[in-house]
Amino acid sequence: MLRIDLDAPDGGRRRPDELAAEEPLEVRVGKEPLAVTMRTPGHDVDLALGFLCTEGVIRGPDDVRTAMLCAGAETPNTYNVVDVTLADGVPPPETDPSRNFYTTSSCGVCGKASIDAVRTRSAYDPGSDPLTVPAATLAGMPEALRRAQRTFDKTGGLHAAGLFDGGGRLVVLREDVGRHNAVDKVVGWALRERRLPLTGHVLLVSGRASFELTQKAWMAGLPVLAAVSAPSTLAAELADEAGMTLVGFLRGRTMNVYTRPDRITRD
Amino acid sequence: MLRIDLDAPDGGRRRPDELAAEEPLEVRVGKEPLAVTMRTPGHDVDLALGFLCTEGVIRGPDDVRTAMLCAGAETPNTYNVVDVTLADGVPPPETDPSRNFYTTSSCGVCGKASIDAVRTRSAYDPGSDPLTVPAATLAGMPEALRRAQRTFDKTGGLHAAGLFDGGGRLVVLREDVGRHNAVDKVVGWALRERRLPLTGHVLLVSGRASFELTQKAWMAGLPVLAAVSAPSTLAAELADEAGMTLVGFLRGRTMNVYTRPDRITRD
Repeated sequence: MLRIDLDAPDGGRRRPDELAAEEPLEVRVGKEPLAVTMRTPGHDVDLALGFLCTEGVIRGPDDVRTAMLCAGAETPNTYNVVDVTLADGVPPPETDPSRNFYTTSSCGVCGKASIDAVRTRSAYDPGSDPLTVPAATLAGMPEALRRAQRTFDKTGGLHAAGLFDGGGRLVVLREDVGRHNAVDKVVGWALRERRLPLTGHVLLVSGRASFELTQKAWMAGLPVLAAVSAPSTLAAELADEAGMTLVGFLRGRTMNVYTRPDRITRD
Repeated sequence: MLRIDLDAPDGGRRRPDELAAEEPLEVRVGKEPLAVTMRTPGHDVDLALGFLCTEGVIRGPDDVRTAMLCAGAETPNTYNVVDVTLADGVPPPETDPSRNFYTTSSCGVCGKASIDAVRTRSAYDPGSDPLTVPAATLAGMPEALRRAQRTFDKTGGLHAAGLFDGGGRLVVLREDVGRHNAVDKVVGWALRERRLPLTGHVLLVSGRASFELTQKAWMAGLPVLAAVSAPSTLAAELADEAGMTLVGFLRGRTMNVYTRPDRITRD
């Protein structure tokens, strides 16, 4: 790697650098390949469980008989497959044989259909969660997340998702080259720890709040989703439908509250 | 939307805000649904063509008979479907009936397999491109991109992809809530304009350089991919395999050159 600094007297110089690792992970259910995601290795079983949860396939740890990180057929052993066996009575993922892709909840040909699909799938009602959070507590979360992101300082290449309790304490932090994966790793951890639904908690993401991240938060029963950057229109519409509080541009001492602002207090 | 500024004397106040639009787009080939992506509406046909190109389904405009943005079956008319009819003799997208998802080039259970899949698909050899770019020219591109991103100032929520010629002139800029989509919109434009392969050009992306973005750049024949933020390990490995120059952390007067640094000159 060549480092170039146009203002340095000696010009470009080499120095060590560490890149964020990225490898494909295949999620199989009952030996059948379901999906492949490009992810940062680590917490792979949680990633698979979180993905299956936020896609509506499983609702709790009792829906899973086994979940194993295993090698593919290749040599050398790559450990880039998680094979999940569902418990008896749990229906396998819906796949539409007329379509050639896994029917995620973002399928549908308009935003309203996408929102309807999430409403149908979610087992939880974040709208009824009585949590309130002081604005000052929210404002402190991004810095707490960054402090915990020791890896971030090395690579600068990882998205982060942090789960906070209502008092602003960081409960769990996960990082990934893919922001969806970081959230799935948090949700998978919570599922495995029997903490779902995540009532009374705040999920903070380091980037933007998209439809899919908002969907994942709803599927985990989170009452508050906060993002350092902007939400999309469809994210705000989905949060409104869910009764979730959606916070964007959470930076320094300011923030935008797009939905359910009654949860954010000013004391 | 409630804007909270903890340091403002009057506390939270409401003000207008504009969010980045996000809607699903379904890409159909010969009436068969192939993939759904969450995107910012606009340049939808280019998005579909770019997606099909970077996935290896089409190589040029003559591989397409028609490409139409059309409504779904719903009322009201949503215009969230692009239906592509391939020209005679162009094989339809490979789908693996034993798998329930479209087999993109990121399928595979290890990074090496993913890289091999791209090498097999790509029609171009960026390694042989004689382009050189002065480091100072590269350093000016992010600011040129931001100047052109008028929308960015309104929403703060859009990823950008900018195509530059070797002299540092911005040729085309596309934005999207999804960074892959922004790149596909650029590639689809180039395909429609019969500009593929994009020899002698630089693609700049506003965020990170992932495996998938590097794959798309290779499929379009680009010799240089530059990112404002960090690349991943697999992105750097893929760029090395392609003979592409991969630049990361292109900020201010500094940059990291991960592969093929011979293309970046210091005059």
